[in-house]
Amino acid sequence: MGLRTGEQYVEGIKYRQHAAIYVMGKRVTDVTTSPFLKPSVLAFKATFDAAFEEDTRELARTYSPIIGEEVNRFNSLHTGPQDLVAKVKLLRKLSHKTGACFQRCVGWDALNTLYIVTKKLAEKGKKAYHDNFMKYVADVQRKDLALAGAMTDVKGVRTLRPSEQPNPDAYVHVVEERDDGIIVRGAKANITGAAVVDEVIVMPTRAMTEKDEAYAVSFAIPLDSPGVKVIVGRQLNDARRLEGGDIDGLPYMFNHEGLIVFEDVFVPWERVFLYRDWREAGVLVEIFSSYHRQGYAGCKSGLGDVVIGAAYNLAKQIGIADKPHVQEKLTEMVFLNETMYSAGLAASWEGRKLADGPGGFWVNPMFANVTKHLVTRFPYEIARLSHDIAGGILGTAPSEFDLKNPEIRQLVEKYLQGVPEFTAEARLRMIRLLENVSISAGYLIESVHGAGSPQAQRISMQRLYDFEIAESIAKYLARLGARPADKRVEPHKKSDAER
Amino acid sequence: MGLRTGEQYVEGIKYRQHAAIYVMGKRVTDVTTSPFLKPSVLAFKATFDAAFEEDTRELARTYSPIIGEEVNRFNSLHTGPQDLVAKVKLLRKLSHKTGACFQRCVGWDALNTLYIVTKKLAEKGKKAYHDNFMKYVADVQRKDLALAGAMTDVKGVRTLRPSEQPNPDAYVHVVEERDDGIIVRGAKANITGAAVVDEVIVMPTRAMTEKDEAYAVSFAIPLDSPGVKVIVGRQLNDARRLEGGDIDGLPYMFNHEGLIVFEDVFVPWERVFLYRDWREAGVLVEIFSSYHRQGYAGCKSGLGDVVIGAAYNLAKQIGIADKPHVQEKLTEMVFLNETMYSAGLAASWEGRKLADGPGGFWVNPMFANVTKHLVTRFPYEIARLSHDIAGGILGTAPSEFDLKNPEIRQLVEKYLQGVPEFTAEARLRMIRLLENVSISAGYLIESVHGAGSPQAQRISMQRLYDFEIAESIAKYLARLGARPADKRVEPHKKSDAER
Amino acid sequence: MGLRTGEQYVEGIKYRQHAAIYVMGKRVTDVTTSPFLKPSVLAFKATFDAAFEEDTRELARTYSPIIGEEVNRFNSLHTGPQDLVAKVKLLRKLSHKTGACFQRCVGWDALNTLYIVTKKLAEKGKKAYHDNFMKYVADVQRKDLALAGAMTDVKGVRTLRPSEQPNPDAYVHVVEERDDGIIVRGAKANITGAAVVDEVIVMPTRAMTEKDEAYAVSFAIPLDSPGVKVIVGRQLNDARRLEGGDIDGLPYMFNHEGLIVFEDVFVPWERVFLYRDWREAGVLVEIFSSYHRQGYAGCKSGLGDVVIGAAYNLAKQIGIADKPHVQEKLTEMVFLNETMYSAGLAASWEGRKLADGPGGFWVNPMFANVTKHLVTRFPYEIARLSHDIAGGILGTAPSEFDLKNPEIRQLVEKYLQGVPEFTAEARLRMIRLLENVSISAGYLIESVHGAGSPQAQRISMQRLYDFEIAESIAKYLARLGARPADKRVEPHKKSDAER
Amino acid sequence: MGLRTGEQYVEGIKYRQHAAIYVMGKRVTDVTTSPFLKPSVLAFKATFDAAFEEDTRELARTYSPIIGEEVNRFNSLHTGPQDLVAKVKLLRKLSHKTGACFQRCVGWDALNTLYIVTKKLAEKGKKAYHDNFMKYVADVQRKDLALAGAMTDVKGVRTLRPSEQPNPDAYVHVVEERDDGIIVRGAKANITGAAVVDEVIVMPTRAMTEKDEAYAVSFAIPLDSPGVKVIVGRQLNDARRLEGGDIDGLPYMFNHEGLIVFEDVFVPWERVFLYRDWREAGVLVEIFSSYHRQGYAGCKSGLGDVVIGAAYNLAKQIGIADKPHVQEKLTEMVFLNETMYSAGLAASWEGRKLADGPGGFWVNPMFANVTKHLVTRFPYEIARLSHDIAGGILGTAPSEFDLKNPEIRQLVEKYLQGVPEFTAEARLRMIRLLENVSISAGYLIESVHGAGSPQAQRISMQRLYDFEIAESIAKYLARLGARPADKRVEPHKKSDAER
Repeated sequence: MGLRTGEQYVEGIKYRQHAAIYVMGKRVTDVTTSPFLKPSVLAFKATFDAAFEEDTRELARTYSPIIGEEVNRFNSLHTGPQDLVAKVKLLRKLSHKTGACFQRCVGWDALNTLYIVTKKLAEKGKKAYHDNFMKYVADVQRKDLALAGAMTDVKGVRTLRPSEQPNPDAYVHVVEERDDGIIVRGAKANITGAAVVDEVIVMPTRAMTEKDEAYAVSFAIPLDSPGVKVIVGRQLNDARRLEGGDIDGLPYMFNHEGLIVFEDVFVPWERVFLYRDWREAGVLVEIFSSYHRQGYAGCKSGLGDVVIGAAYNLAKQIGIADKPHVQEKLTEMVFLNETMYSAGLAASWEGRKLADGPGGFWVNPMFANVTKHLVTRFPYEIARLSHDIAGGILGTAPSEFDLKNPEIRQLVEKYLQGVPEFTAEARLRMIRLLENVSISAGYLIESVHGAGSPQAQRISMQRLYDFEIAESIAKYLARLGARPADKRVEPHKKSDAER
Repeated sequence: MGLRTGEQYVEGIKYRQHAAIYVMGKRVTDVTTSPFLKPSVLAFKATFDAAFEEDTRELARTYSPIIGEEVNRFNSLHTGPQDLVAKVKLLRKLSHKTGACFQRCVGWDALNTLYIVTKKLAEKGKKAYHDNFMKYVADVQRKDLALAGAMTDVKGVRTLRPSEQPNPDAYVHVVEERDDGIIVRGAKANITGAAVVDEVIVMPTRAMTEKDEAYAVSFAIPLDSPGVKVIVGRQLNDARRLEGGDIDGLPYMFNHEGLIVFEDVFVPWERVFLYRDWREAGVLVEIFSSYHRQGYAGCKSGLGDVVIGAAYNLAKQIGIADKPHVQEKLTEMVFLNETMYSAGLAASWEGRKLADGPGGFWVNPMFANVTKHLVTRFPYEIARLSHDIAGGILGTAPSEFDLKNPEIRQLVEKYLQGVPEFTAEARLRMIRLLENVSISAGYLIESVHGAGSPQAQRISMQRLYDFEIAESIAKYLARLGARPADKRVEPHKKSDAER
Repeated sequence: MGLRTGEQYVEGIKYRQHAAIYVMGKRVTDVTTSPFLKPSVLAFKATFDAAFEEDTRELARTYSPIIGEEVNRFNSLHTGPQDLVAKVKLLRKLSHKTGACFQRCVGWDALNTLYIVTKKLAEKGKKAYHDNFMKYVADVQRKDLALAGAMTDVKGVRTLRPSEQPNPDAYVHVVEERDDGIIVRGAKANITGAAVVDEVIVMPTRAMTEKDEAYAVSFAIPLDSPGVKVIVGRQLNDARRLEGGDIDGLPYMFNHEGLIVFEDVFVPWERVFLYRDWREAGVLVEIFSSYHRQGYAGCKSGLGDVVIGAAYNLAKQIGIADKPHVQEKLTEMVFLNETMYSAGLAASWEGRKLADGPGGFWVNPMFANVTKHLVTRFPYEIARLSHDIAGGILGTAPSEFDLKNPEIRQLVEKYLQGVPEFTAEARLRMIRLLENVSISAGYLIESVHGAGSPQAQRISMQRLYDFEIAESIAKYLARLGARPADKRVEPHKKSDAER
Repeated sequence: MGLRTGEQYVEGIKYRQHAAIYVMGKRVTDVTTSPFLKPSVLAFKATFDAAFEEDTRELARTYSPIIGEEVNRFNSLHTGPQDLVAKVKLLRKLSHKTGACFQRCVGWDALNTLYIVTKKLAEKGKKAYHDNFMKYVADVQRKDLALAGAMTDVKGVRTLRPSEQPNPDAYVHVVEERDDGIIVRGAKANITGAAVVDEVIVMPTRAMTEKDEAYAVSFAIPLDSPGVKVIVGRQLNDARRLEGGDIDGLPYMFNHEGLIVFEDVFVPWERVFLYRDWREAGVLVEIFSSYHRQGYAGCKSGLGDVVIGAAYNLAKQIGIADKPHVQEKLTEMVFLNETMYSAGLAASWEGRKLADGPGGFWVNPMFANVTKHLVTRFPYEIARLSHDIAGGILGTAPSEFDLKNPEIRQLVEKYLQGVPEFTAEARLRMIRLLENVSISAGYLIESVHGAGSPQAQRISMQRLYDFEIAESIAKYLARLGARPADKRVEPHKKSDAER
């Protein structure tokens, strides 16, 4: 059945013999006990547990017509706006449980993207890939697999196309075609949750030309396939997890991002979803990135709630929560946070059908891009305001080991306490939470770059807005032209995916 | 039948013998030919024409179960999210036709508000007001009346309640109760479209206490009721309309705002919708202002399209439309504009039912406040960017009378032209459009203050956000408390209207 | 002697028989009595009066070694940082007297620019132009002339050089060389104060190539030279001046901007300061624009004081001046205003000597550009905050003619009053002041475009910052290179003018 | 002589037997070899070395009339604007050498503050404290001591005065007066460089009333005085320093902040500079905080140069440095950075003399507050822009130990390289630099809270701006009052320190 418990997920990834996972230069054999990766495992686990917990049970499950059962929503395909709305809401709610990125969206968005892309290919007569995909998604849903989505190539020289790169492996590509499958080489960077998943879905990262044909490839493989290596990246404050404490670094969940290297990895044909159809690469990227940009409305506003809650509590701890300037700042944080969320809801409700069948409902691409672009800016502002409220102590608080050292424990307790109703430990714990969430790579850097850089959204918005129609409206009003007959309300153009 | 043509509307307001309307110190007897007010009449007229024009016919009409016919949407009651979405979309589209505020939303929002408020009173046993209201709305729909909504009192000393004011008439109030009705006195300020409507719906402007009982009054009267005076306010650049030209000031539609003075005006009982029920005043204001804040997503993003289109055209006229920094600015304008719009769509789709029957569907108050708060900021930014693109000529261009003076016409033509494909007149017309729209009271000042000042939205957002839940989420993550059992996704509190 | 009274200035420009000045399509023979231009005359006049008024006497006068007397500072040459600081301070103070641009800076900056440029040419052996200039400046100082500076050409197609334009007159150029002088043709746009000065100094507006040689020309001529036409541009709310009232439009000073057309105008050799030396054009523009950008710190912060003062008064008038959110906004306005001013002071104090003799002290170009770039943004923000405080009435207040109409005067008095200590007239006057200043072309559009568009400053800042040095600092810290030996504190490059 | 080398400073602090310094719960006996504190020692050391290095020698030295020798500028007193300008410039330059806060400003600002405060007390007849101070400063200069300044108390309940706190030690206070000196108790928080200095100067942190008399105390003591404990605070990424690598965490300099606890510490009378003179506390704080706010212009713009340089280099490494949107962002970073710096220069040049003798020159308090308030905002914006340019890799790059592991070294080298001219190691080093500087507590949190929270600057700016004068200017222009006779250019009030 399509619903594993969190515990089952953890058991499932505990020993994967061939998966070569490196953390800080060392091979890790059991990711579930690695102090560096455990926070990621717990965050991923939360997506499974959500399907069984009272407050998220409904949101986290949905019926799949593909396998005729309830599945974890993270492996479901969207058939209407209500699914997209549920996605955004589930993500906000899950952030409240984890305080971190739970890493399961990329794979989810990849499934929904490949449904549409393979379906379109099928309509053009190439049915095999859609058949492959439908079998794959049924399997994923039945086993409730944990998936990573891998799109971003390492890219080498940014201004050159894949086939023009001095390093021919700067983009993942097919190096050999065999009867039973293909051999691929290259590396995917910034892959969320890379080390703690069952499988990886690989997709191309940009529009391509005919010369880049070998780079137009999409497939799925188990993480422990021969030839796959995962080099886990560093994050802000990561080394604190290794200290053995229970305040400064440990108890929080975190995501991780990794480099997945494919050293001539074999992929059987039934796991191939796109192969040398270079014309589809651009549309695939557009569909995926819009899905992924929409999602940020949920997870980042959920983290925003955590930041707001922490700032509010710290204000209480020193007795300033009802000061006008503090309320002003808290309200501003709420405003910014709800703005991001609103845009994501609009991107969901105003979505459109791109393909028939048990999937194929897409977001509104303009609002999805607006959502993500807001996310590239507002978290820095929310973080700044939270730091303002929290006070300078956020950057100077003693470590938990000072609090635990009997020689100085009393001093720390005496001088870290604000309002007597709160203990010094409560203050320290909340300071660390705010520090660890609001100044995390996940809340700052990833808000800028996840699902494409700010510039990528700007290019999308520029393409989607119909400046010519806007101009004709202006010309009409200035008595320089007739009233445009156009029935569209929004001066938006169709995206490539809709054409 | 519930649909008048624009022409019928104009005829209807042409001669209203008792309506005392003052413009720049002079009594106006026919608003439809007053050079000052004609742009407002035309903008209002556009809301009627929209129901007959191909591109808006569907959006601008809706079936009313109350009278069993199609009505103009501006007089309809909302029964579900699709109605609220249609509202926002209709407003954006109408801005493209008018380039100005078309002034009919306040009355519309008043109808929807009073439906809910009188219905709630009826549920508490006071049925007369709802009966009055239902008869009234049926009449409005059948005759397709043009309504103004009048909420903002002149307020005198802002820090005092109505009953505490040195000027007892600083808020509209009942001064006498008679068998056949009531006598009211006071004045309502900033009333959009005040001089060009058939009727005015009056509502209280703030929460009240028992002492303010006489101020808790809502009613509707024809504009030409004895004792009503309208003093039309000035606007930026208004005097240009009186010059007789056809470029600098005339051809544009504009809204107007006026002071409506009630000098002991008689209101028959059947036109009274709230009377001394001071407890309802606060909720009424909350319901109305949220409706009205949602609407700004439509009209202001529509004006944003006009500003973007004008800036884009002017960039073309001097050959810089494809310069990176110009594209950067155009894209930023799109982003800001679509952000406001997205929030309004979210406020619509995520609305909720407050009352049963043929109305009663309300917006999501948090997102409605977010929408309006965005509107208090982004138009100034969009305006600035448009001025940046347009060039300094926006503030220095010659008048149309220079262009028309044979002595210097050739000079103006020669030196105002940029790229030869465009004439100097085309440049001047577009410059004036941009000036008249982007630096209008409607796009700037009213974006700040319409439907309540920025501070009003901040207070609302602060009240609607559940800081205690956010804190409990943070405490859970910091290991200072249990996981909140709360099923809500958004940490939002119920508004007063929902309790 | 080098100091005229304001009255003498007015008398001087009263009748200039050949000056062909057009305002709204009509020829104006006496600018001092034209209702449209009188506010400009008064603003310009304030610069003369300042030299005799107690509070500005010292700032507004300075000793000129050139003529050995005290002169009006607006005609002086800068010899050290204290002169530049005095400039900024004088401008701030004069804004308090005028509430408007007083229009005399461009000519002043032109004088200082031409001193340096002609001096540099003299050092290269071309002494005639410097001799011409020194005679000219002595004459200007002695007669205390009112000067306009004319730089911006109409530019035609922005992407083409002067010599490539379809309209060969899109930039002012020499069309004939004679024994006694030259004949010039073309037009200068956006010329501040164009109609109310004694003379105009013309300068090229951009860097040039050899092919543009004929466009590399600078000279000075009386405004009433044969062949000169001035077409005065429109401004926001300009038509109100023609109404004859004393509140809504009249009493304020304003600047004006005009198009100056040169229809084959003769310039005698002694009035020529640059002639076909195309290599100097770029440096001339850099020197001038930096001078002019620095000045904005003064005049715009002075207008900011007016806006702050008006908002503060209006807050008092309705009893909210001590509300925390109002104080927050007032403080933000102060902060933004003082930031612009600070940058201008830094640009002054950190200036540098470009040429010896009784002039030649230049600003710090980086900080001058920073100053102006701040000015392209902050006034819109200050305006928005002032509108927030003032309330919606700013866009809806009745006209003065309503207040003066005995039929409704009492109503206006009763309902426009806030706190009883203030009258309705006091409120209306202050509302109009705020409207007329904060939403003027001078405070908004001209803040964006004066002294070059925002993009011009960005290009300057990018050129002036030494990214290579910054990179070498980063490389040193990242252990990728040696410590830069560079002694500069700021990683700034020399401007072209300093090389 | 008043100039120690960096090496001499390090030797001097190597063994301080009584100084009880705790880092992460453990007592540290030699701060110069502690991996946690060594980066701080090196940063402090740079202030000594600067006096001997070619590029800073002149800036870092100045003649002291007090001891008649050259001293390190960090121990000097300011006698004119040029000293304040040199301060800002020295700080910018030193940031280029350290990439971190070098921690010596607080003590410097404390010296300058106490000169003025004790001098004023002397003028009121209390000469002993000034005598104490002058002897102390001579000693500091002669020995070239490393000083910390300690102002911020732990404050307990923020809304209560020192004497009202539930914890009487929430502010440092005198608990006993003896013949030879006083006994003090309490703790100072957020003390920059606390563990690596020779001495600490303690000052009160807020204005006081008579009841708080015992809290009005200022003094200096060696760090290793009996009863002094230093608990060093944590910082972002601090644990990386303990890993033993040479890329990820080690090679950078950092500051540290600590809690200094005074457990009944004896201070001899000759080291006491303020004692129970509660009236002076407020002015002392104003003088100090303005000095300290001015300084931020230097150090933070210097760090900004590092961030800009690192972003520029990373853009080059992937081949995008000349893309328009990258140049746009780099230019914006420059603009923001130079704005902060400009304000600090204005605060220096426009300073004023508060006391005679070999010190006493103060900043301009308005511009000092503007400077710091800019610093509370712009670094977050600069950081965000730098992250935008750097790419997502900033949050996902592998550790140096991956690069050093022969198993995967080649993969990291192959896939981390962008443009072939740069190595993977060069990319990793630059990524880490950008991460460690732009997301440091020093660049973000401390920019918000150092020298007082944003609200503290807002209160100061609000107090320093003369709203009444601004109002009178507006009233004059609105014809509601006479022209203010005031000769001040800036509508600024005198600060308390100047009265």
